[in-house]
Amino acid sequence: MPRYRLTIEYDGSTYCGWQRQKNGISVQETVERALLAFCGEAVTLFGAGRTDAGVHATGQVAHVDIARDWKTDTVRDALNAYLREEGGVAILRAERAPEGFDARFSARKRHYLYRILNRRPPPSILKGQVWWVWRPLDVEAMDRAAKHLLGTHDFNTFRSVNCQAKSPVRTLERLDVVRAPGDEVHIHASAQSFLHNQIRSFAGSLKLVGEGRWTEDDLVAALRSRDRKRCGPVAPPDGLYLTRVDYPSADHQAEQVGDGGEGEE
Amino acid sequence: MPRYRLTIEYDGSTYCGWQRQKNGISVQETVERALLAFCGEAVTLFGAGRTDAGVHATGQVAHVDIARDWKTDTVRDALNAYLREEGGVAILRAERAPEGFDARFSARKRHYLYRILNRRPPPSILKGQVWWVWRPLDVEAMDRAAKHLLGTHDFNTFRSVNCQAKSPVRTLERLDVVRAPGDEVHIHASAQSFLHNQIRSFAGSLKLVGEGRWTEDDLVAALRSRDRKRCGPVAPPDGLYLTRVDYPSADHQAEQVGDGGEGEE
Repeated sequence: MPRYRLTIEYDGSTYCGWQRQKNGISVQETVERALLAFCGEAVTLFGAGRTDAGVHATGQVAHVDIARDWKTDTVRDALNAYLREEGGVAILRAERAPEGFDARFSARKRHYLYRILNRRPPPSILKGQVWWVWRPLDVEAMDRAAKHLLGTHDFNTFRSVNCQAKSPVRTLERLDVVRAPGDEVHIHASAQSFLHNQIRSFAGSLKLVGEGRWTEDDLVAALRSRDRKRCGPVAPPDGLYLTRVDYPSADHQAEQVGDGGEGEE
Repeated sequence: MPRYRLTIEYDGSTYCGWQRQKNGISVQETVERALLAFCGEAVTLFGAGRTDAGVHATGQVAHVDIARDWKTDTVRDALNAYLREEGGVAILRAERAPEGFDARFSARKRHYLYRILNRRPPPSILKGQVWWVWRPLDVEAMDRAAKHLLGTHDFNTFRSVNCQAKSPVRTLERLDVVRAPGDEVHIHASAQSFLHNQIRSFAGSLKLVGEGRWTEDDLVAALRSRDRKRCGPVAPPDGLYLTRVDYPSADHQAEQVGDGGEGEE
């Protein structure tokens, strides 16, 4: 049975999150419905990252097995035709997945972007697509503080009380805070896997540093405490985007490099 | 009575356009309601450009007379507090207008951006904020063709049949077509004033050039015909943004340089 790898973009504000749930329409279910309409099969779609309600994606990756061997362009275009009415999800690419590929377990690195609109007037066009922070942020201080979080740490402070990962230890490979056009501040975060609400917890705490309400040392102390209560207020989902998922080259797809508890933003 | 100049941003997709209308909520009315709530006065807001339903602004300018002499920061912040619930309009700046200032009649130049998303998958996050054109566009050909429209012409081909301007003659000062990040193509247009639907008519016709369905000469012939039926299909409002309005320096504000029929996008 051919396995397809889909690269998916979505506006998270209209969904209850990536994962199928009883109390709302998820992105997963939406794409599964389009797959059913397209190929007549009730299939299950497996995503690389389980984004929460309101969290967006410009590069979510998922895999699905379909009985028939379709041209990949046909898969992409047919799904988009079914999804267009919906309006909140688009299939950017459809590819045949290499042998052993699993969107979740094969993932080597996940990349997220957190967008802050840092200006006094609230957003209008970007409503739901950014976190509005009206106090001027010291971006250099945020970036300096962010560097203390790099590497392997027990990130218990920065994960949701609902996080189901067995271990709170993760290895953060990138955490950069930069100014961006249009009065935006962007936080770029990369790791093989993240804990539930980890990036939104980072964003909420780094905002306190940017406002001068926390020092770098306060952030370090919060990390070291491994105490959830020491985390800054968790930033809203609006500003968070899953932008890319990296996989080993095709030769090494059969290796499962993931640890299974990942990508729970 | 103090006159204030407001710089306004809005998501046009939730309004029936800038101008007050019977069949829907306009941006003008929305801000006038916020003004009433703020200062208790039923005032009229005069805008520089009468944008159609679905057309956005990142730099609309309007003026309003209020009896009391408020601090400009208070005007901006109070209006935004009332507008936040609404969510689709933000006041970027409030200033005291110089003597003789009129948002519409004093305007020297209006700047618009038209955003095309040029990729095969439809938009999801940018739905309503761009025009989706899936055929690959030859941006260089579009830009070359656009240059034939520069200068003073009878633009009857490129205006709505409902355009109320007495003369179809306008002077186009800028029309650039460029690639932009995220698979976008941007059309930048500047003139003292535009005819109703002029930029959307340009965008629709330039798209035909970009797809190779029109040559440069076809565009020139359409312009010269002064025949509305020779215009390409008018592009949707979604991609259009009023980005900036220029005024003479304060010393010359009393001069009214506009011709009164302008800004009807």
